[in-house]
Amino acid sequence: MNEIDYFLNSKERALIKLNYAENENKLDEDIKDILEIINLNDDYFTSSSCSGRIVIIELPSLGNKKEAKFLGKWHRAVKNSEIDYALKSASEGMIWLLAQSPILHIIAKSNISADKMIKIAISSGFKNSGVKSFTNKKVVEICSTERLDVPIGKDGILYCNNQHLDFLIDVSNDIINRSKNKLKLLKKNLDETLLD
Amino acid sequence: MNEIDYFLNSKERALIKLNYAENENKLDEDIKDILEIINLNDDYFTSSSCSGRIVIIELPSLGNKKEAKFLGKWHRAVKNSEIDYALKSASEGMIWLLAQSPILHIIAKSNISADKMIKIAISSGFKNSGVKSFTNKKVVEICSTERLDVPIGKDGILYCNNQHLDFLIDVSNDIINRSKNKLKLLKKNLDETLLD
Repeated sequence: MNEIDYFLNSKERALIKLNYAENENKLDEDIKDILEIINLNDDYFTSSSCSGRIVIIELPSLGNKKEAKFLGKWHRAVKNSEIDYALKSASEGMIWLLAQSPILHIIAKSNISADKMIKIAISSGFKNSGVKSFTNKKVVEICSTERLDVPIGKDGILYCNNQHLDFLIDVSNDIINRSKNKLKLLKKNLDETLLD
Repeated sequence: MNEIDYFLNSKERALIKLNYAENENKLDEDIKDILEIINLNDDYFTSSSCSGRIVIIELPSLGNKKEAKFLGKWHRAVKNSEIDYALKSASEGMIWLLAQSPILHIIAKSNISADKMIKIAISSGFKNSGVKSFTNKKVVEICSTERLDVPIGKDGILYCNNQHLDFLIDVSNDIINRSKNKLKLLKKNLDETLLD
């Protein structure tokens, strides 16, 4: 199979999966429009993506993400009471509070189209964007630098005091709200650049 | 200037800068050997790099990294007393404790050599490696996912209690020690792959 056929085949399969996720309501509302603009363009299709999230996880050990246990996950700003409730189910391993800015994976048809997408992403504030692979599939990763990664306790015990936890939640919400604004700017820039 | 001449010219200038940094003792000891192996190969040269570090900074606001004020910076595991001492000079803005794994930037001669470098990096545990740019300069970024990004106080006031701060320092040191081990593996893999 030549490179273009491989791209078209992969795009077809990716769109079926995306459609399935949409029907199951598994798609983040905040990036639905963005994925649609990208997928309407012949040069690109999207794979995994996340609109930004706040997470409470338990990790058996540092870097052991495969065995991470999610105690709470929100694709929006959170209330302190939601975090408190999630923390009640902590039992074993390190407890982390994470605030993650959006991440999108886009497969580009050519190096030139990959480069164009990176430029749109960077000009929209996603300064950490780049290409993860470019020999077979040209995979562009759109992401940003703002994040919060805080170990807050261990084995069910919270080391973090209330005042500090409130502060961490404020900063997390700030990261998520900034993320949503960046996504709006990305949508506008994609609109202007791809839908001409 | 054609692409190869541009690469050779840029490499020459980069090596002069590197030599200057080495003479001024501004080079991280832990990655000196790695930079040397890469620069000895005709297909690559290195630009900015960091062997991993623990940092205390003050930020006027979220994302405002340009105006960050460094209160302490260590390219090694730290003692709690060193962090305590650095925190004494906090005065204005958000105080963050960061533990950052190594980051290396390498310019590759071709897409094939860039891809080869990414494969070596990923097989050495630097799972977040990729290409930041590949139309003019092909810039490979070698980096890893482990990190800690914690806002610990504001305007000179620490929100973090002692037990929690000790825990954060432990995790930070763990990240730095793991980083050093990954660098050793990267050196071994570069040795085996590039010096043949």
